[in-house]
Amino acid sequence: MTRPRHSAQQYIDGVLAGDRALLARAITLIESENPHDAPLAREVIEACLPHSGRSIRTGITGIPGVGKSTFIEALGKHLIETRGERVAILSIDPSSQISGGSILGDKTRMERLGADERAFIRPSPARGHLGGVGRHTREAILLCEAAGFGTILVETVGVGQSETAVRGMTDFFLLLMLAGAGDELQGIKRGILEMVDLLAINKADGDNVNRAERARREFENALHLFPASDDGWIPKTVVCSGLTGAGVPAVWDVVLEHHQQMQETGNFTRRRERQAVDWMRDLISQALEADFLRRPGMEARLREAEIAVRQGAVNPISAVAGLLS
Amino acid sequence: MTRPRHSAQQYIDGVLAGDRALLARAITLIESENPHDAPLAREVIEACLPHSGRSIRTGITGIPGVGKSTFIEALGKHLIETRGERVAILSIDPSSQISGGSILGDKTRMERLGADERAFIRPSPARGHLGGVGRHTREAILLCEAAGFGTILVETVGVGQSETAVRGMTDFFLLLMLAGAGDELQGIKRGILEMVDLLAINKADGDNVNRAERARREFENALHLFPASDDGWIPKTVVCSGLTGAGVPAVWDVVLEHHQQMQETGNFTRRRERQAVDWMRDLISQALEADFLRRPGMEARLREAEIAVRQGAVNPISAVAGLLS
Repeated sequence: MTRPRHSAQQYIDGVLAGDRALLARAITLIESENPHDAPLAREVIEACLPHSGRSIRTGITGIPGVGKSTFIEALGKHLIETRGERVAILSIDPSSQISGGSILGDKTRMERLGADERAFIRPSPARGHLGGVGRHTREAILLCEAAGFGTILVETVGVGQSETAVRGMTDFFLLLMLAGAGDELQGIKRGILEMVDLLAINKADGDNVNRAERARREFENALHLFPASDDGWIPKTVVCSGLTGAGVPAVWDVVLEHHQQMQETGNFTRRRERQAVDWMRDLISQALEADFLRRPGMEARLREAEIAVRQGAVNPISAVAGLLS
Repeated sequence: MTRPRHSAQQYIDGVLAGDRALLARAITLIESENPHDAPLAREVIEACLPHSGRSIRTGITGIPGVGKSTFIEALGKHLIETRGERVAILSIDPSSQISGGSILGDKTRMERLGADERAFIRPSPARGHLGGVGRHTREAILLCEAAGFGTILVETVGVGQSETAVRGMTDFFLLLMLAGAGDELQGIKRGILEMVDLLAINKADGDNVNRAERARREFENALHLFPASDDGWIPKTVVCSGLTGAGVPAVWDVVLEHHQQMQETGNFTRRRERQAVDWMRDLISQALEADFLRRPGMEARLREAEIAVRQGAVNPISAVAGLLS
């Protein structure tokens, strides 16, 4: 977007009024790579910030095939229809490499939920050259909160670098798994298991119920060996089915139990404070790196340097000295 | 060090000759925060780089009390006396907060090993404001390799942020644990368990042998539930005793088995290549951040901004805009 069609005030009024179309456009604005959009984007975010923060932010991850979209649709419907929530779903899309078929199926399903005005669904690009995964997702969360969405679900695919970033901007982290702990685990990135607050074995329906329960018990035993998290929460395990909806309310009960415990111990506030400081540091690093990459020809030189370093033709110290000179 | 006492050539000749005193001074040089030392440091590192890389780099971690120093001393003696290796031990010291008593004990023990000229022992400060944990450890590894140390042990305390950094500069990651999976685990940082190539239950001596073996089996079962690492290695578990030396040779057998497998699959080279590119990116980020922090008054302004953001008095976006303007 080179020419924004709205003034800052129009964006702000629209977002604060809960207008989903203007919320979507405001997110497009903050995602814009055009430096000319940056001042307007900042104005909109800053105006929305005082109205943000009053939500439960939940990260949801799991490999492709785990039934994430079906689960999220079931959870979203439950939250809206039974609990009277307004739900925003932000999906961090690692790229377009993911197999076309399932994406199409997902979209169709998600669109049904998206038609409900109490839901807002939005893919969030996973950009950033020097490690800025989901760099605009944090801002998108704030805008959704300012628009009155009290439940934010941030979805990632569980195979990339985005999970740590999402962990750092949410209050609760949910991992969806399948029964059959062998092959299905291969796809997931190491390190994720230790970030989870709740591990849900999905597709616990039909013939699969007993296997799912067995898998849950195995994971429960394994998680007991993990160190407790800093905030004193012991990760839980449940079985559920996005297809039948069984166990989906129980998932949210755990989220609420965690939320209450974190508020009582003061860890909720402490975590949000820490995340704000981390966000500030990220913004500094991103700004410094963006400046660096805007130097003439730098992107191409960096690419060449990486190849030369990988091949051992140049050592990293010389390469960096060359780039910075 | 404001006035280096040696020329670049003296440092280089000393390191390449395996002179431990000059190696120690060269590491002091690269750790210097004085910008005037930087060109000399770079010259020394660059000259040593072609002579580096021919070692096995092992990261070792575990909470205070796990018996790390005793274990490393036993491992070092075994490597030197039985396997004829030259061993460099770099300890990343998170600060001086760690309880004084054990540090003193450690030093006495370690000094005995350090008296042997086939060993080199060196604490490495964990500096860096914006996340540069162990930023000079990588260079220290290279200098030790150039000085002919074929085995590098990088020790961290297992409670901080340094483990991920160490994982990113070593070939193998060893976690020391104690039997009694409950309380002893509390101290360790989450996420470490999924980085390990080998989990060793230490203090498997006297009355503790059976408990250690039970703990090992529990962890073995738990680790089976973890996703396999990208390089196809399945984490192993052993019991050992730094005190009696039992199981210490078996630990090194696993390191060598891993090394051979990684070389056969080409993963050893790929990992080192990836680490070189990561190192280059780290150097760029560090340089950009160092430039930023050298702006007049910036360190104090950054500290104030962090406090204001933590207290919610300023939002991160405004704070960063203020700092960068």
